[in-house]
Amino acid sequence: MTDSLRIAVIGAGYWGPNLARNFRASPHWELAAICDLDLDRARRLAGQGHDVKVTDSIRDLLADDDLDAVAIATPAATHHDIAHAALAAGKHVLVEKPLADTGERGQSMVQAAAESSLVLMTDHTYCYTPAVLKMRELIHGGDLGEVLFIDSVRINLGLVQPDVDVFWDLAPHDLSIIDFILPGGLTPITVSAVGADPLNAGKACIGYLTLPLADGAIAHVHVNWLSPTKIRQMIVGGSRRTLVWDDLNPQQRLSVYDRGVDLGLQVLDGADRRSATVSYRLGDTWSPALPETEALGSMVAEFASAIRDKRSARTDGSAGLRVLGILEAASRSLAAGGGAMPLRVEREAMLAGGTARV
Amino acid sequence: MTDSLRIAVIGAGYWGPNLARNFRASPHWELAAICDLDLDRARRLAGQGHDVKVTDSIRDLLADDDLDAVAIATPAATHHDIAHAALAAGKHVLVEKPLADTGERGQSMVQAAAESSLVLMTDHTYCYTPAVLKMRELIHGGDLGEVLFIDSVRINLGLVQPDVDVFWDLAPHDLSIIDFILPGGLTPITVSAVGADPLNAGKACIGYLTLPLADGAIAHVHVNWLSPTKIRQMIVGGSRRTLVWDDLNPQQRLSVYDRGVDLGLQVLDGADRRSATVSYRLGDTWSPALPETEALGSMVAEFASAIRDKRSARTDGSAGLRVLGILEAASRSLAAGGGAMPLRVEREAMLAGGTARV
Amino acid sequence: MTDSLRIAVIGAGYWGPNLARNFRASPHWELAAICDLDLDRARRLAGQGHDVKVTDSIRDLLADDDLDAVAIATPAATHHDIAHAALAAGKHVLVEKPLADTGERGQSMVQAAAESSLVLMTDHTYCYTPAVLKMRELIHGGDLGEVLFIDSVRINLGLVQPDVDVFWDLAPHDLSIIDFILPGGLTPITVSAVGADPLNAGKACIGYLTLPLADGAIAHVHVNWLSPTKIRQMIVGGSRRTLVWDDLNPQQRLSVYDRGVDLGLQVLDGADRRSATVSYRLGDTWSPALPETEALGSMVAEFASAIRDKRSARTDGSAGLRVLGILEAASRSLAAGGGAMPLRVEREAMLAGGTARV
Amino acid sequence: MTDSLRIAVIGAGYWGPNLARNFRASPHWELAAICDLDLDRARRLAGQGHDVKVTDSIRDLLADDDLDAVAIATPAATHHDIAHAALAAGKHVLVEKPLADTGERGQSMVQAAAESSLVLMTDHTYCYTPAVLKMRELIHGGDLGEVLFIDSVRINLGLVQPDVDVFWDLAPHDLSIIDFILPGGLTPITVSAVGADPLNAGKACIGYLTLPLADGAIAHVHVNWLSPTKIRQMIVGGSRRTLVWDDLNPQQRLSVYDRGVDLGLQVLDGADRRSATVSYRLGDTWSPALPETEALGSMVAEFASAIRDKRSARTDGSAGLRVLGILEAASRSLAAGGGAMPLRVEREAMLAGGTARV
Repeated sequence: MTDSLRIAVIGAGYWGPNLARNFRASPHWELAAICDLDLDRARRLAGQGHDVKVTDSIRDLLADDDLDAVAIATPAATHHDIAHAALAAGKHVLVEKPLADTGERGQSMVQAAAESSLVLMTDHTYCYTPAVLKMRELIHGGDLGEVLFIDSVRINLGLVQPDVDVFWDLAPHDLSIIDFILPGGLTPITVSAVGADPLNAGKACIGYLTLPLADGAIAHVHVNWLSPTKIRQMIVGGSRRTLVWDDLNPQQRLSVYDRGVDLGLQVLDGADRRSATVSYRLGDTWSPALPETEALGSMVAEFASAIRDKRSARTDGSAGLRVLGILEAASRSLAAGGGAMPLRVEREAMLAGGTARV
Repeated sequence: MTDSLRIAVIGAGYWGPNLARNFRASPHWELAAICDLDLDRARRLAGQGHDVKVTDSIRDLLADDDLDAVAIATPAATHHDIAHAALAAGKHVLVEKPLADTGERGQSMVQAAAESSLVLMTDHTYCYTPAVLKMRELIHGGDLGEVLFIDSVRINLGLVQPDVDVFWDLAPHDLSIIDFILPGGLTPITVSAVGADPLNAGKACIGYLTLPLADGAIAHVHVNWLSPTKIRQMIVGGSRRTLVWDDLNPQQRLSVYDRGVDLGLQVLDGADRRSATVSYRLGDTWSPALPETEALGSMVAEFASAIRDKRSARTDGSAGLRVLGILEAASRSLAAGGGAMPLRVEREAMLAGGTARV
Repeated sequence: MTDSLRIAVIGAGYWGPNLARNFRASPHWELAAICDLDLDRARRLAGQGHDVKVTDSIRDLLADDDLDAVAIATPAATHHDIAHAALAAGKHVLVEKPLADTGERGQSMVQAAAESSLVLMTDHTYCYTPAVLKMRELIHGGDLGEVLFIDSVRINLGLVQPDVDVFWDLAPHDLSIIDFILPGGLTPITVSAVGADPLNAGKACIGYLTLPLADGAIAHVHVNWLSPTKIRQMIVGGSRRTLVWDDLNPQQRLSVYDRGVDLGLQVLDGADRRSATVSYRLGDTWSPALPETEALGSMVAEFASAIRDKRSARTDGSAGLRVLGILEAASRSLAAGGGAMPLRVEREAMLAGGTARV
Repeated sequence: MTDSLRIAVIGAGYWGPNLARNFRASPHWELAAICDLDLDRARRLAGQGHDVKVTDSIRDLLADDDLDAVAIATPAATHHDIAHAALAAGKHVLVEKPLADTGERGQSMVQAAAESSLVLMTDHTYCYTPAVLKMRELIHGGDLGEVLFIDSVRINLGLVQPDVDVFWDLAPHDLSIIDFILPGGLTPITVSAVGADPLNAGKACIGYLTLPLADGAIAHVHVNWLSPTKIRQMIVGGSRRTLVWDDLNPQQRLSVYDRGVDLGLQVLDGADRRSATVSYRLGDTWSPALPETEALGSMVAEFASAIRDKRSARTDGSAGLRVLGILEAASRSLAAGGGAMPLRVEREAMLAGGTARV
């Protein structure tokens, strides 16, 4: 077994304790320091009798040559500066989502990491749940064939957030998951967003996001703070099989249906149209057993593996960047009355970042 | 008890037999004639030993002065001419949906009926199911308060239709139901449609329809022929209560949730924005008992009542026209890449038709 | 293709029409006659324009040498005499359940059929549903391993029957299904029945039936007329896999769980006791696709096949007899306060009947 | 606000920490001491910087005059002696279930508490869940009318326990809940138990418990370690309404059905038999909102209230004793082949204990 990597958690507020707890519990990591402007809060998180450094100075923290990495759990507007400082100091970086507060600043973080050959990972926690890991495995392994459509619904009676609308609050989950399970990541041709604010809350409380994909496929996301019934369901329709993820059914979260529609491939009249011969497969349904592992534990293990193997993490900075780019395009579409918006961030840049190897 | 009304069914194909069976079983109706170009088919439907006239001539049929009404179950392209002939002969008319093949022709039918003070009814069968009748009663009675949003999902592995796309095949159900339950009918500000044809079938097999309503409310419809899992669910969110209709759960089709989000009404900074004080109601859920009545039986009873009471039927020609208008706007939006389309049919005309009294 | 077999339906009341319809629709059968004491009722069932004989005399009916078989759908108390007459006339016999009104009379029918090498089949319709046929296939094929337990629940708000208690009304379904799916049929060591009559209706409205099986296995049946919630569920626990049949979930009626408890096989202290080393399998779940076929159609096809192949039908007279024997023992247990009752009917006789080949 | 009561937790193993955490968090209690033979374990539970005494001597603990009560979370065989010592020292006592290892010893504890006018409470945690509290409220308030039947199912793939069978492992939950919700507690006329051990584990792994109640009512419990599907459902049928508790459906744990069967009350032939006129109510279903409170918190609050109000706790020693008595009778029935066993503990004694006021 190799030595543990040494990590500092920056930010001891809401999410930092979860990260600290999982780094502490991981055989891959040694929790070396907690950094927070509120030193008392940092001390409480560090605990007594542990050899964990407490500081309110990022500069001091990064001066520690034995520190391998930092995990940033501070407000989104501070991610950019802290990450740049850490990368400049030669530290690998994990960032709580969203990667940054704007796509432009996120992109500069991704480029800095690529140039310095350091791992920049986004904490898309949901991607490390057993169900989503299995979905990725099935889709990447070809069990579903080509992905034809993805329909994601995440609705519940939810807190109307003071600072963000329902898209920025809930859709990052759906978008990061879709990005994770699609072999090439989520790179829609355009983004359309329609929202509603029937309570006059000053922001969209109901949102529909339409994402046309290559080859006629489509992804669609429904997020809603006003639904009395709670639904967290994603359908991924493939050319060979179709998958339904029902996150609220612990007895059968994933179902793989060997059902589908087959069109005859006969070319009609020399035209590029398939014939009308339609046939159905109504095959068995299969529900894979899923292990009972905690997502955050798998996430910190992936961070360590990516550093050791000198490769991008599964949810790397580019993944965070793609999610940010779609949210920004959704906001532009919303402001423009729902029209289809292209992604502003250059696709080439994103893909370049996505395939950068450390 | 008053005398029965005398009806002829025109068209003995797929739907005609269902209509004939229900008119026969109804105490309000006497099935007087079957009319079909295929006389053998008409004879088989008329049956033996019954006093039901069989004919292949609409002219002969309409010459019968004792006939009160006709039910048209022929192809959509023929509805316009047959309905005009029947109205001109003084007969009340029931038309299988869609009302006509174009909005323009449908509108001329509605006007002809209004001018001759005859009942023109669209057979929106789903509206006469006990669940939808109860939904209408609850919403019209104010139990839900103002309607804030409607989200309807109708997905299943379905036949790829040779002549129509998934919007024209499935969405008429959702649209006619929403039109039926909303106090003012379904009159969206615009219509946006996004479709996908990932199998290259030559038409949309997956469809999303967005319908902004007055006062910030919204309706959204998801129809899909490619889903391996069958969902038929409509959520109607109101300012007081919210309702969920799950048509595939016979043990609890309707649930009324006394839950919701309340925003404080305090005006901030003189602006027309409600304050951020949000509170939640997490009240009881209530599932009304529903009678076990057949929808078509209730529909033919309503047709008789409307004639006797000299009033519009609950699903009158204008209802059929509103559904047609939205479908046409959806097709235009689809062709234009998903932009928001106004309704072409004049709203005033529709409303005028909708409130005409016979 | 061989010629059709000619059948007469005796009894045109509640169940006879269902049988007549299915014999008429079957390629294996020709409906030759309807026999009922009420000739008008028989004539209505025979219909017009069909070459179906109508009679009120069983003697006349059985005198027809071209008749191959009869289906008896008369009251249970008449089954014995009619079946004996038919067998004596050389006709194969299908009997609506229950086979007879007493086990003794049922047994004499089984013996008469065996002696005359004619097929005597019980109409256990449920056994011919696709779900139950698949359960039989899986269990007989060894997919479940040894059957360890069967738990069947059939509860609903039901009519309090005037003549029978809840055991005789509902349990025949469960018992005939269990008899059908177990490789050796249902031959419990004893039968215990506990009932409750909390409404003072004069008979058990709630019933629990306990059936210890060989090798420590057990079957248990819960039937209930007073439950507001409807459950029709059977769990069949096996040493390799376990199966759950939920008849009210059309989207997933059958689920096969590759889960279970394994005990170490180490013999302790020379004793015949397995060690306490317990391990769990938490494998995948699999839900086989089921065809959409009507049970009664499959049942009449099986009747024809059994006659042609000169073999016992899948639900033969012995199956009906085993169900009767258990119901009689349940009544004895109920009268005796719930004690365990042996089966009165000789097991050897039943098994002999069960394996008789025509 | 009155002063807090001072409590000591005896036993720092599996359950003790849960009790300690809830006493600490309660405004009604002050955690004064932890007692365990393993002083290190006791110290870890007491924590640092808290003024909590740590001891391995019960004698020392009970010598503290300022201590009001003890909570016993030691092995069942030690409950009797520790409880007697505590009661003799004038302390109120909370005992982890089961109350004792035998009914006889439990009864002596109940008597000692009654004689010394101290509260003896059994920690039947499940009774303090919001769902069970609501069930009790509805039944005690008359919403269900007379209770006609209770059917409880608690099945899952479970650990085969080394020391107890499935009755002693799982049925205490069902029995304590039924005892809690029935107005007079659970006092069955007899107890019948049937078990199965199809894996040859040396003890029952599947169990059915039948409990005839007064006036023809019945309770039945199904517990099972071998079921691959998890069910935790209790149906309580009443003469006015019926209630279903589905503990695995967080969105609708409780459903109250306004449905039922009504028998006409006409006396026939002077006999004490109701007539056969049966009618059905198929009314609405209602699902009460439940608060999100932790059961253990409510339990420790009830312990404090009972002490302050000088009354029996809701789950007092007698409740624990009734559960013990039924489990012992179940074991006798199992050993005797499933026959109906009377309760050995005198009903009068139990009831006397149950109504003793402190």
